[in-house]
Amino acid sequence: MKALTFDPARNDLPCFAAAAPRFRDGSDTPRAFLERCLERISALEPAIRAFVWLDPAAPRAAADAATARYRQGRPLSPVDGCPVAIKDIIETVDMPTQMNSPIFKDWQSGRDAASVYALRAGGAVILGKTVTTEFAMAAAGPTRNPFDHTRTPGGSSSGSAAATGSGMVPVALGTQTAGSIVRPAAFCGAYGFKPSHAALNIGGVHPLSNSHDTLGTLAGSLADAWLVARHIAAVVGGTPPHPGLQGPTDLPAAQAPRTLIRLETDGWKEVDAATRDALDAAIGKMAAAGAAILDRRNTPEVEQLERMLQGVAETARVVSTFERRWPYLDYATRHADKFSKAAAERVEASRHITAAAFQTALDKQEALRRAVADMAALADGFVTLTASGPAPVGLDHTGSRSFQIFWTLTAAPCITLPRLAVSGQPVGLQVLGFRDRDAALAGLAHWVDQVTRP
Amino acid sequence: MKALTFDPARNDLPCFAAAAPRFRDGSDTPRAFLERCLERISALEPAIRAFVWLDPAAPRAAADAATARYRQGRPLSPVDGCPVAIKDIIETVDMPTQMNSPIFKDWQSGRDAASVYALRAGGAVILGKTVTTEFAMAAAGPTRNPFDHTRTPGGSSSGSAAATGSGMVPVALGTQTAGSIVRPAAFCGAYGFKPSHAALNIGGVHPLSNSHDTLGTLAGSLADAWLVARHIAAVVGGTPPHPGLQGPTDLPAAQAPRTLIRLETDGWKEVDAATRDALDAAIGKMAAAGAAILDRRNTPEVEQLERMLQGVAETARVVSTFERRWPYLDYATRHADKFSKAAAERVEASRHITAAAFQTALDKQEALRRAVADMAALADGFVTLTASGPAPVGLDHTGSRSFQIFWTLTAAPCITLPRLAVSGQPVGLQVLGFRDRDAALAGLAHWVDQVTRP
Repeated sequence: MKALTFDPARNDLPCFAAAAPRFRDGSDTPRAFLERCLERISALEPAIRAFVWLDPAAPRAAADAATARYRQGRPLSPVDGCPVAIKDIIETVDMPTQMNSPIFKDWQSGRDAASVYALRAGGAVILGKTVTTEFAMAAAGPTRNPFDHTRTPGGSSSGSAAATGSGMVPVALGTQTAGSIVRPAAFCGAYGFKPSHAALNIGGVHPLSNSHDTLGTLAGSLADAWLVARHIAAVVGGTPPHPGLQGPTDLPAAQAPRTLIRLETDGWKEVDAATRDALDAAIGKMAAAGAAILDRRNTPEVEQLERMLQGVAETARVVSTFERRWPYLDYATRHADKFSKAAAERVEASRHITAAAFQTALDKQEALRRAVADMAALADGFVTLTASGPAPVGLDHTGSRSFQIFWTLTAAPCITLPRLAVSGQPVGLQVLGFRDRDAALAGLAHWVDQVTRP
Repeated sequence: MKALTFDPARNDLPCFAAAAPRFRDGSDTPRAFLERCLERISALEPAIRAFVWLDPAAPRAAADAATARYRQGRPLSPVDGCPVAIKDIIETVDMPTQMNSPIFKDWQSGRDAASVYALRAGGAVILGKTVTTEFAMAAAGPTRNPFDHTRTPGGSSSGSAAATGSGMVPVALGTQTAGSIVRPAAFCGAYGFKPSHAALNIGGVHPLSNSHDTLGTLAGSLADAWLVARHIAAVVGGTPPHPGLQGPTDLPAAQAPRTLIRLETDGWKEVDAATRDALDAAIGKMAAAGAAILDRRNTPEVEQLERMLQGVAETARVVSTFERRWPYLDYATRHADKFSKAAAERVEASRHITAAAFQTALDKQEALRRAVADMAALADGFVTLTASGPAPVGLDHTGSRSFQIFWTLTAAPCITLPRLAVSGQPVGLQVLGFRDRDAALAGLAHWVDQVTRP
């Protein structure tokens, strides 16, 4: 099968939020919606390999139950009947959770993760498990980029990105510890929403670095990315003690900003000229639509923030490496031979970060968080790339983290929009907001999505 | 078998810290130490029922390995050879973890919790699993109070308290979400150390209320309570992003305070006259040893704090109830019939706390934390009772939380000392410190332990 062709103006991906009114008026049904997803999966999955587990029986039964509820005029929740794919580090009671690791081959958790519980309680159709890199940390899985099978889909939420970017499923769950939601989403032409840290309850997600691990959504539409995230928070809250993502049930209306900050970040030196031009063109559209654009050249405070962003990847590395001690050192005592070489090295490294070095990194992280929060006095949000360009060729490496890791460190939310194309490949436009102001970010991203549509 | 007689001056309980020098000089061995524990268990366990799982084979092999290492002059760590009992909500790779719930009957986690990993990596002897109340939340287990078999041992760390207070094992792990370390320790005549929240890595402990769940130690000596806690933090740090309990390897030297605050708390109205007299006598000894005592009558700031403490149990209840949504609502979808009535009610209640009510409770909690932190300008720490009196008669209820829950809410550390006796039963003297100044609290508690010894 040939790779798909990427069109940054496309709007033909399945969108649950758009379909739900038709479920209510009877002109469409969750079962029919699911069957369209399954047809597309049948066509694309052999080449893309987004799923590690998919048995249509249980999803069909769930979709039939949802169909009956709509027929009776009693859907359980705003996500009733919505097919959702689940990254395979997130526990599911009816499917194995395998972390792309032989240590967890065929492992059954016996329960649903908080997010999966919330979705199922709302009538959502838990469709299958998507490929992750090993423990969301190391060896890549078999997934290929839908728009060029020789390119990486990105990682670690590889399967969730490929499945949503290619229209197999409207929305999927993913997690980000460095760049693992927005990078693969960008590479696969999907929307990706990394909420504020802890805004979606991470219970039942296999830990990598607790203080950076963030649960979020990847989707074919911004509407579904928001709807599913907000529903999860409404049912199970955030990761304690976070009360959970706040805001309206449906995607907030597009909100035009007065001022946006254009960030270059530590990743700027990796960017090719065509990608830089694509970003500049998009920012030009935002300016034309009325947004004042601040950057390091015209605003000293932005230059100061850019300087703080230099080297933050090392700060993030120290934090996440220290936090990796458990459970990975425990696994290493019994299963060292079942780690990839890359995983084994990263686990071993955790022994050598001292508590003092960890504390120093936390202090730097806190300083960055304060500096970013202070920028709320200047602007309504930030824009930059989601990655330095299109997905690299090759399936062994999932791409550079430079354009994602800095915002994970801030614990603030970000959204990637599939609005740029370079060399025929998707490139992500990243909109970044302020911590725990996720609804404001969604309204801003909604506006950016509209004004940058080609 | 008759119940043990409690003597608040006793010093005949097994103490690993005291024995370790003899392991080094060859006059004692970890295997012999373990055998003395096993003998005492054989004698006491039939009546006390502290353990839910104990198979001596693996502990004996671990003790033999430790014995060999001391013989070679190469112990793995300061806890090498130390027998430790593990509360049965903490994962152990070689024993089931059953939460005192039929839902988890015979459940095998496949790994060690962070704390158990750290202990085992240091050569400690993981002795067995101790009785917990159902999910550390509801139905009591079969454990009896060592000093009166008709009385509760307290909960939820019932078995860890009874095992250490009766000298079956020098030290055990426990957890506190409301009062579950220090209350049972007090009722059973043990030392109990609830560190600052997150100071010991909680990974692999079944969650109850993440933002209150605190891992700690119960022991026959203050030395072992500290030694084991500090070792865990040294190996696996705290719960991310807490870098972990800091301080010396061994119990800090006794540190005389200049000033102590005597707290009455919301629980004062529950206290009987004999218990009140016992506390006053102990505080009298501290004053005689040179500590200035501030209380609500002589210090307006203390009166103000006492007023803030009124009703804090309700604040804690709102926080912990909201946080209970996951995994308990998920369990309820498949296993509702396997919850006790009390557990089922508490799980159901979690649906009815709104995110707004949760946030209001978090705001009150934060205000209390700031008020407590401000008291560091006035005093070196606080003293009060650990419970309103001796353990109540009856095994169905584990006692009032009034004297413990307020300090869980502050996230600050506390230590209970078995230095009071009322009606022949142990009553705990509680020493409370400032958040993340655990070593200072341990030095203070060491001093209080010495000056209040009868």
